[in-house]
Amino acid sequence: MTDLFWPGDERAGDLFTERAWLSAMVAVEQAWADSLAGAGIAPAAADLSGLVGADDLPGLARAAEGGGNPVIALVRLLRERADGPGAAWVHRGLTSQDVVDTALVLCARDTVAQVRAELRRQAGHLAGLADAHRNTVMAGRTLTQHAVPTTFGLKAAGWLGGVLDAADALDRLRFPVQVGGAAGTLAAVVDLARARGAADPVAAATDLAAATARRLGLEPAPPWHTSRGTVTALGDALVACTDAWGRLAADVATLSRPEIAEVAEPAADGRGGSSTMPHKRNPVLSVLVRRAALAAPPLASTLHLASALAVDERPDGAWHAEWAALRTLARRTAVAASQTGELLAGLRVDADRMAATAEGAREGLAAEARAVAAFAGAGTEPAEGTAGAADALVDAVLVRADRFMETDT
Amino acid sequence: MTDLFWPGDERAGDLFTERAWLSAMVAVEQAWADSLAGAGIAPAAADLSGLVGADDLPGLARAAEGGGNPVIALVRLLRERADGPGAAWVHRGLTSQDVVDTALVLCARDTVAQVRAELRRQAGHLAGLADAHRNTVMAGRTLTQHAVPTTFGLKAAGWLGGVLDAADALDRLRFPVQVGGAAGTLAAVVDLARARGAADPVAAATDLAAATARRLGLEPAPPWHTSRGTVTALGDALVACTDAWGRLAADVATLSRPEIAEVAEPAADGRGGSSTMPHKRNPVLSVLVRRAALAAPPLASTLHLASALAVDERPDGAWHAEWAALRTLARRTAVAASQTGELLAGLRVDADRMAATAEGAREGLAAEARAVAAFAGAGTEPAEGTAGAADALVDAVLVRADRFMETDT
Amino acid sequence: MTDLFWPGDERAGDLFTERAWLSAMVAVEQAWADSLAGAGIAPAAADLSGLVGADDLPGLARAAEGGGNPVIALVRLLRERADGPGAAWVHRGLTSQDVVDTALVLCARDTVAQVRAELRRQAGHLAGLADAHRNTVMAGRTLTQHAVPTTFGLKAAGWLGGVLDAADALDRLRFPVQVGGAAGTLAAVVDLARARGAADPVAAATDLAAATARRLGLEPAPPWHTSRGTVTALGDALVACTDAWGRLAADVATLSRPEIAEVAEPAADGRGGSSTMPHKRNPVLSVLVRRAALAAPPLASTLHLASALAVDERPDGAWHAEWAALRTLARRTAVAASQTGELLAGLRVDADRMAATAEGAREGLAAEARAVAAFAGAGTEPAEGTAGAADALVDAVLVRADRFMETDT
Amino acid sequence: MTDLFWPGDERAGDLFTERAWLSAMVAVEQAWADSLAGAGIAPAAADLSGLVGADDLPGLARAAEGGGNPVIALVRLLRERADGPGAAWVHRGLTSQDVVDTALVLCARDTVAQVRAELRRQAGHLAGLADAHRNTVMAGRTLTQHAVPTTFGLKAAGWLGGVLDAADALDRLRFPVQVGGAAGTLAAVVDLARARGAADPVAAATDLAAATARRLGLEPAPPWHTSRGTVTALGDALVACTDAWGRLAADVATLSRPEIAEVAEPAADGRGGSSTMPHKRNPVLSVLVRRAALAAPPLASTLHLASALAVDERPDGAWHAEWAALRTLARRTAVAASQTGELLAGLRVDADRMAATAEGAREGLAAEARAVAAFAGAGTEPAEGTAGAADALVDAVLVRADRFMETDT
Repeated sequence: MTDLFWPGDERAGDLFTERAWLSAMVAVEQAWADSLAGAGIAPAAADLSGLVGADDLPGLARAAEGGGNPVIALVRLLRERADGPGAAWVHRGLTSQDVVDTALVLCARDTVAQVRAELRRQAGHLAGLADAHRNTVMAGRTLTQHAVPTTFGLKAAGWLGGVLDAADALDRLRFPVQVGGAAGTLAAVVDLARARGAADPVAAATDLAAATARRLGLEPAPPWHTSRGTVTALGDALVACTDAWGRLAADVATLSRPEIAEVAEPAADGRGGSSTMPHKRNPVLSVLVRRAALAAPPLASTLHLASALAVDERPDGAWHAEWAALRTLARRTAVAASQTGELLAGLRVDADRMAATAEGAREGLAAEARAVAAFAGAGTEPAEGTAGAADALVDAVLVRADRFMETDT
Repeated sequence: MTDLFWPGDERAGDLFTERAWLSAMVAVEQAWADSLAGAGIAPAAADLSGLVGADDLPGLARAAEGGGNPVIALVRLLRERADGPGAAWVHRGLTSQDVVDTALVLCARDTVAQVRAELRRQAGHLAGLADAHRNTVMAGRTLTQHAVPTTFGLKAAGWLGGVLDAADALDRLRFPVQVGGAAGTLAAVVDLARARGAADPVAAATDLAAATARRLGLEPAPPWHTSRGTVTALGDALVACTDAWGRLAADVATLSRPEIAEVAEPAADGRGGSSTMPHKRNPVLSVLVRRAALAAPPLASTLHLASALAVDERPDGAWHAEWAALRTLARRTAVAASQTGELLAGLRVDADRMAATAEGAREGLAAEARAVAAFAGAGTEPAEGTAGAADALVDAVLVRADRFMETDT
Repeated sequence: MTDLFWPGDERAGDLFTERAWLSAMVAVEQAWADSLAGAGIAPAAADLSGLVGADDLPGLARAAEGGGNPVIALVRLLRERADGPGAAWVHRGLTSQDVVDTALVLCARDTVAQVRAELRRQAGHLAGLADAHRNTVMAGRTLTQHAVPTTFGLKAAGWLGGVLDAADALDRLRFPVQVGGAAGTLAAVVDLARARGAADPVAAATDLAAATARRLGLEPAPPWHTSRGTVTALGDALVACTDAWGRLAADVATLSRPEIAEVAEPAADGRGGSSTMPHKRNPVLSVLVRRAALAAPPLASTLHLASALAVDERPDGAWHAEWAALRTLARRTAVAASQTGELLAGLRVDADRMAATAEGAREGLAAEARAVAAFAGAGTEPAEGTAGAADALVDAVLVRADRFMETDT
Repeated sequence: MTDLFWPGDERAGDLFTERAWLSAMVAVEQAWADSLAGAGIAPAAADLSGLVGADDLPGLARAAEGGGNPVIALVRLLRERADGPGAAWVHRGLTSQDVVDTALVLCARDTVAQVRAELRRQAGHLAGLADAHRNTVMAGRTLTQHAVPTTFGLKAAGWLGGVLDAADALDRLRFPVQVGGAAGTLAAVVDLARARGAADPVAAATDLAAATARRLGLEPAPPWHTSRGTVTALGDALVACTDAWGRLAADVATLSRPEIAEVAEPAADGRGGSSTMPHKRNPVLSVLVRRAALAAPPLASTLHLASALAVDERPDGAWHAEWAALRTLARRTAVAASQTGELLAGLRVDADRMAATAEGAREGLAAEARAVAAFAGAGTEPAEGTAGAADALVDAVLVRADRFMETDT
């Protein structure tokens, strides 16, 4: 997939595409069918593989308007096209929202896995930069002005800390199945189980939900039709990622300014050019990552708003606003993850320029040190040009990164 | 185009699709080429029609990442594929942003035109409802509770007022061309004009911009590369539309509740059904319109944020964040326009139920009238069950609507 | 008023403070009382001046929770404290929302007037800068990199265009009275008029609304309890202002970087200092203006969301979310207006540094001109170091500014 | 503190007021002074208690504009007013951001503690409701229409699950100290330690940060000047709370509609009244809680945006945008927490009305059960009027709630 309106979109591959979501919905129906058959409630499980595909997408999308979601039409197709006694059992006991939500969780899980892997790669690059540049003194800047000396190693360590925080945020996410039936009571499943002679129909119903979760590799969970914390936590964690990259990209874009020129994005064929200015080397990866970071928070806020308006047993519009917001946020996060990784893998650091700037700004950068020396009393030498505890602070982040890389297999 | 994540998306047709945007970009290049030739600066204008199409979209989108926008690759294609002496002149004097922005404006103009036409249709339906139900007394409700009597005619007139306000907001929009060159100075155009012997190269340059605007049916304008008011005004006006429909849809969804049942969405085959509950008649158009209204404001806020961060002569990410936000907002507004129109065209109003509810709630609904009578003094009859100046207020909106319909040809 | 959490808050003076809002509410009640008496419906108008004040604020605020808004308790106080036969007539015929909304409009009008005056001052400073620096060549920058030459005059003209656009946005605002009664039907007013023998009670009611508008200097309007376009337009226009200033402040902050150093904020005692670094000259006005520009769009989006959720004849939370959002947005806009004005009044422009940078970057900045010359053919001189139509573009904005200043008395 | 624009504000007491923030800043300076003295670096610690107070707020707020934050002026005051040899040592080694950020964390911690306690109380009420109403059958509603039967117990259990999720979100928060010095390198502290003869000045510096954290009851942490995950996580967790309450309040507001009338807010003197309609019983707590839930997500998105723009070693506006957003979000969350608690403590549930509505809607509510019976085959009785696994689902949430209440001391 590509998107002319969002250059780089293809980096997200098939994550959270319409096709991926459709596949995930079919996977949910399959897991449910298998669970119904496995529990002896359905006589058999239909084999749903290959029954629907990309060609069905426009029709399903059109039909989705009628019921407000695509599952009604999908179930009709699946029952028509499936063979054997299991065909009529497809979707029995579920409600549309069960399928939509569980499929969203599956797509989200895949996205998070890819982003998580990118974060790991980024952490590797950043640990390398932090370590390599622990003695690369540069001007620290606050409110755009030179402040006191720092090191590029510490700056990279700061970026690394942000990346590790983002990974932590992803690691706290949960991926629960949604099985609740029409109003979250599991009534239809209980009725089916009772009709098919289950000794404890209620237990049978919750067992079915758990079995479905197991087949899909998801967590079992009580129905969460109107408890949307799973979705908002996803949004928040994805934005925690774009926040971390946005800040890093802001630094790279700033430090790439020709008047500063302390870092440069990796050179690549056809990267950073202009339609009319042959000399340009735009920090285009940073630009595109910043774009994502600017646009992400409002999407996550839409998810929160939808959560806060989750009235009744299924809300009247709030739920429907989630899907596209989550899709867009997820794909863009995956794109920015990849762009940030490429940016870091080839980042060029001009330590000489950093040194020269710091030297040229020595008067200002050392002002604090002189003031400290003056305050601390006679005989004290101002510690000009050093970067305080930067080295130890780099070490602390590297220790954290090592632990992260080791436990992450 | 359809979108499984946004049921109803196909109602927006080809508005603001990748293909539409690409066509618009080619139209901009064509108008520019024609203007260059028309002014005698280029020897001829290449004919760009049919040179690029949907098949080129994935390639252009992929190539767009290199420069951060799709124009560089597009120009290369056009120059390669065009015939004659005009081929080399394609895009000469423009910058990528000129093409991207003007093409966005063209897509926006088409969207606004379609939404505007839908608003007109909606106004017609609403004027009919307001007039027909000027005597249909119903319970007025505030903070969810019965307040005093109103009429359904006045409610419809309120919706109508909102729709007319939204049309006014669209009518205030401006659709300017963007021609500024690399940094908004028109330098390359001036240089070209000078090189080709123009007597007043600067005047030639601004004339070229104006001629291009004329060919595209846009307003001439000074370069607005970093003055993004055009874009934010578009976003705000589109959200003014979804606001108006969102409020209307919230009313319909509420009044459709079975316990209230004062209105119902039009019945349609396959509309409002459920995957498991055959009896359901969900107000699905209202639900989908509300979805759009909830998700729209954050998209417009992204456009404002991008505007506020428009640094330098072209910003480092803010501009790039606009395109998809505007696209998504525009398509969704067109979809919601159509859904609202359908909803209004067939809205079923149960005047008897309204009367029965108002009668049943008479005690409370008349409390204010009794209090007024008590206050106003002996001999005053409480004016129970009447709706104040509702009739006159309906008339006032209808007069406004008439004026709107008449002047709108 | 000051706010430790929002340095500079005191620049907004008493605009939209709790006290200002309370005064505005009393003004609304007074205008209504006067109108009732003027129309012969009430026997007399109470004199409400001086009856409530700052000391009442905490009590009124506490009491406001009971009914969800402060008017119920306010009316009680006014009736208790007013003298004469008009006392009992205070608020008769109005509903809380009438008073709250009209008072918000009054506060908004005052804010807009102050912001508008600041925009005028800013336009004056900017016209001066644009004119004075029309020949001050500097490097144009796109995506953070040097592009082609521009002039500081053109940059200032671009800022000026944004400021004029913002003024236009404010000038399109409307300030309507809100008089609708409990459910927007004017029922209580009609009843009162009828009870007091009005020949045409409905006409009397709409006349009263119009008279109240006239007394307050507002537009007459039909009730807009659930048509919130007035509020969203206010929010959008205020954000159009902060957008214009945000972009300008981003430029100043960037150009103030010591490595660029092409502009500097005005020096002032105690401005731009640091708690530990005596040498620092932070561009603190730009920083604070940027702060406002970043935080404003989400506040306006809250107003849109509230508008889209305006269900029934008064909504169940959406309306209540507007007041503080509008207050905060209004005050911050007034603060940023003043800060931007101060910034522009004393902006220091280092034309020599601009020239030196442009000269140093000549190779890159002239690349486009050389490419144009090469394309345009033999004998053409590259127009290095010139800024195209910049001068004419500056003139065009200055003409617009002149017209603005002249018609604005 | 009260706020006329935000009725109920006083429920947040002194949380995150200007005064509280000022006190927290002084507490940070005190802890730092004590740590400096404790480590033998400063000769003594000044006693800062009582040196500044509410009277200083306007002056400090005004002075804050000069440096962009209030700490510079605060330090000047403290040094002037403190006695003894420690006076000159106040703030030595810190930067403004250290004090601002750590004080924000202290205020946030207090807010979270209060909100957390309210969540516990809410959980108690909700567990009671869920248990008491496990057999209270009511109509389940989806997309506003009757779906299948559920129980009010299950609805309350759903609300409870949301409240427990929100508590979990708060429990994952971290409250780190911020000690980094001018550019996050701890340079001044290291210099001071060296000047005062510390054997390992770097270790002394990190020890000082840790000691300060210990004194304040915060976590030690590396400097996070531009890693704003702490702040965004706070915002996200607070919004997770308002989401949970917003959904609950939406249910209560809906079910309080007179046509539904299945629940009612607790009656209280002066609560829910109207300025003109004596009969009204507005669900005003729900209304005010919904207000908070609608306005909260954009505030959290501002925090994310600030995080994504955290350029350099201290950003040029993004940081400054955080304080007021966090303050407002925190206070409003505390207010909504209290309002929700009061709402739940006295919620009146009309089980008879629920039963009557469910009985009246039996035909529709049982449609699914009949369809299941028809599908499941001959001899199967439709399980009309039962609520599936609702009872077991209630039990599961109650078990979770019990565990929460037990471990929470």
